[in-house]
Amino acid sequence: MVTKQLVKRILNTNYEDLPDRVIEHAKKSLLNWLGVTIGAIDHETIDILMDVIQENNQSTEVTVLGRNRKTDLLSAVLINGTSSHIFDFDDTHLPTIHHPSGPVAPVVFALGEKYHFSPKALIHAFIIGCETELRISNAIYPSHYQLGYHITGSTGAFGAAAAASVLLNLDEDRTAMALGIAGTQSFGLREMFGTMTKSFHPGKAAQNGLLAALLAQKGFTSSQQVIEAKRGFANVYSPERDLTQILDKWGEVWEFEKNAFKPYACGIVLHPAIDACIKLSEIAKPEDVKEIILNVHPYVLELTAKENPQTGLEGKFSIYHAAAIAFLEKDASEAQFKEDKVLAPQTIDFRKKIRPVVNENIAKDMVKATLKTYKGFSHNVTIEHATGSLENPMTQQMINRKFTKLCQEHLQIEAIQELINKMMNLENVPSLTDVLSIINNN
Amino acid sequence: MVTKQLVKRILNTNYEDLPDRVIEHAKKSLLNWLGVTIGAIDHETIDILMDVIQENNQSTEVTVLGRNRKTDLLSAVLINGTSSHIFDFDDTHLPTIHHPSGPVAPVVFALGEKYHFSPKALIHAFIIGCETELRISNAIYPSHYQLGYHITGSTGAFGAAAAASVLLNLDEDRTAMALGIAGTQSFGLREMFGTMTKSFHPGKAAQNGLLAALLAQKGFTSSQQVIEAKRGFANVYSPERDLTQILDKWGEVWEFEKNAFKPYACGIVLHPAIDACIKLSEIAKPEDVKEIILNVHPYVLELTAKENPQTGLEGKFSIYHAAAIAFLEKDASEAQFKEDKVLAPQTIDFRKKIRPVVNENIAKDMVKATLKTYKGFSHNVTIEHATGSLENPMTQQMINRKFTKLCQEHLQIEAIQELINKMMNLENVPSLTDVLSIINNN
Repeated sequence: MVTKQLVKRILNTNYEDLPDRVIEHAKKSLLNWLGVTIGAIDHETIDILMDVIQENNQSTEVTVLGRNRKTDLLSAVLINGTSSHIFDFDDTHLPTIHHPSGPVAPVVFALGEKYHFSPKALIHAFIIGCETELRISNAIYPSHYQLGYHITGSTGAFGAAAAASVLLNLDEDRTAMALGIAGTQSFGLREMFGTMTKSFHPGKAAQNGLLAALLAQKGFTSSQQVIEAKRGFANVYSPERDLTQILDKWGEVWEFEKNAFKPYACGIVLHPAIDACIKLSEIAKPEDVKEIILNVHPYVLELTAKENPQTGLEGKFSIYHAAAIAFLEKDASEAQFKEDKVLAPQTIDFRKKIRPVVNENIAKDMVKATLKTYKGFSHNVTIEHATGSLENPMTQQMINRKFTKLCQEHLQIEAIQELINKMMNLENVPSLTDVLSIINNN
Repeated sequence: MVTKQLVKRILNTNYEDLPDRVIEHAKKSLLNWLGVTIGAIDHETIDILMDVIQENNQSTEVTVLGRNRKTDLLSAVLINGTSSHIFDFDDTHLPTIHHPSGPVAPVVFALGEKYHFSPKALIHAFIIGCETELRISNAIYPSHYQLGYHITGSTGAFGAAAAASVLLNLDEDRTAMALGIAGTQSFGLREMFGTMTKSFHPGKAAQNGLLAALLAQKGFTSSQQVIEAKRGFANVYSPERDLTQILDKWGEVWEFEKNAFKPYACGIVLHPAIDACIKLSEIAKPEDVKEIILNVHPYVLELTAKENPQTGLEGKFSIYHAAAIAFLEKDASEAQFKEDKVLAPQTIDFRKKIRPVVNENIAKDMVKATLKTYKGFSHNVTIEHATGSLENPMTQQMINRKFTKLCQEHLQIEAIQELINKMMNLENVPSLTDVLSIINNN
């Protein structure tokens, strides 16, 4: 019965029931999502998707964000959802490594544009959609993820379908059907990591979930117990499961609040070291540094031990590069992981000064760093919780700065500022057109 | 390495390598597929799909078969693939219960129409696509199916991608990528059986596989070892697997030849009893029959014990209805499972004369029947292998008759005859347009 019970929660949680802090978090999430989506929209991944889609149909109804182009509703959702994951710089629900906005935000943006829902309705549907997918992810994590599923792809369609069902005002039966049609389309292999197909997952999950709701709206039939049935989603897609996590304390504890933003365009394990190196860069000049010793959690060298990265993507898997470039440029955004930075002589030189040391007593979001100078001085800094962790979340100023950097090649600085203001005040903006016109006029 | 090896088989098996009997079987399969697709095309399932698609874009490039409408390439594939499974009357690979044409035939028809591939090229791609998906299904059956996957949905996209890769002339790397993009989209829960979403599975698999090949064609990157990777398809989607089945005796043993056609529009378990009752109807009139005793395999009463079916769908799960209507009408096509037949007083009366008896010594495709008359006569008939089994396949005449009945509400009888002639001579037809114009002009 959990599917039907979940449907009741989805449909009976009104905007007025949402705590202010959850609404604030939603606006930050949408701003963050919009930034990573616009930032990657000129990537080759999107070029190919756009080519295939435009050879298939020439509709111009819904915006491809940041590209001054429109396409059909379902394809726009696929493209925008894919773009948001290309830099691996989107949001993360820390308990499950699920990226909640990817499958849900493109659906609310696209339905909002095509059917003129109010921005307040979009925020509402976005939060319900994210909460739905995250609670289903909780129920099957970690067993499902360990088996090999990319959880954003596999449970994302539930979130997309829930958000669309709320916006389209489906009744209980049809919302349950929408979850059924969405759930049977669950997919996504972790084997795709490192290829364009990884970022395709949240886009396709968004598209699958939206299609599910559009079909259910017109009476397409499906199972109304997709989650709990013997041959339903939880049993088939996960060796272990705890379905109580789907409904427990709904409306009291918001999983969506455990959604964190990345300050740096690389894996979370590197973030404490980057924090430390940016701090240390205030103390010494590069030429005075003899070495930087980084006491790190064992995961760091398991995942990012690449000493001589040769490409931008390899740079994201190198503690040596990440720490060096953070010291040199006081940042670790997408620009710091471009190939020119990875191959620059100055970076290569400084990488040799980085000395990571595994320490079992260091937590995952922690680092203890020591900078030694040629003159014999020694400077220590400890990061207890990296920026972007639940204990030390990014500030609004950091989020705005990240958004600005992601959009600066696509939009004028005044437009970026205006977008930030509109997005952080979205519930009072009269129409989504006010947001889209800024993006499309630039 | 199995994915790469499979790619070599896919790309290096030319039309000239195909045995004549395999080509003959392909033409029968395509004719059978075309019939079940056209037959169901006015079903509500398709009305809803068409509505949603036409609200999304108004392209008119590829035919919705039997509906005198066109839509975009990817949507036509979804619709035609879905329609073919609505009556549960499509083909079946008997070792795995996979319905091979559903995900592959719509792709070759649609690409053939849009890009004008020769009918010979379409037959070739169709066979390679079916062989690919069936061999992957063999590798994971029955474990994957028992877990709860609808195998036509979950491995169908491999077949669709392989067929499209052959037609689009992709190289080895890109064909491997196409399989990767297709394989990560594997989906389909058996929980959906009994709802419209079941027939959506082959259509969506076809669409996913075609999209995969179109993306790979333009350089979209993916894993090139989707089948065998640690977090790849076989390990993630199936508790047990035997990957040797994918390549063993490729080109010698054709799994595609184990593809059977259904003479009757209901589950295969009922087919021996229907055969027997049609035979017995030659001996006695309905009013003279006292009872018909059917010695059946235990599965028959496990699956079809419904004594008083109330709907057409329930009629398909009733040995009483299926046997009665077969005796009364000498047939068990879609018409015999319509609600008016299920609820007709004459049928209801005759159902009371059907007496199934479970017999452990009866094989699944066998029945021993005894008809007793009021006058005290007793007539026996044994069906060793039901019509449509591998040992007793449907004849060309039966296939033609099935096609005719499926199409007669959509096409003139002359057109149907012409279609049969063209389809059974497809390798010599100059262009697919010659086939489509018959369908679209009626």
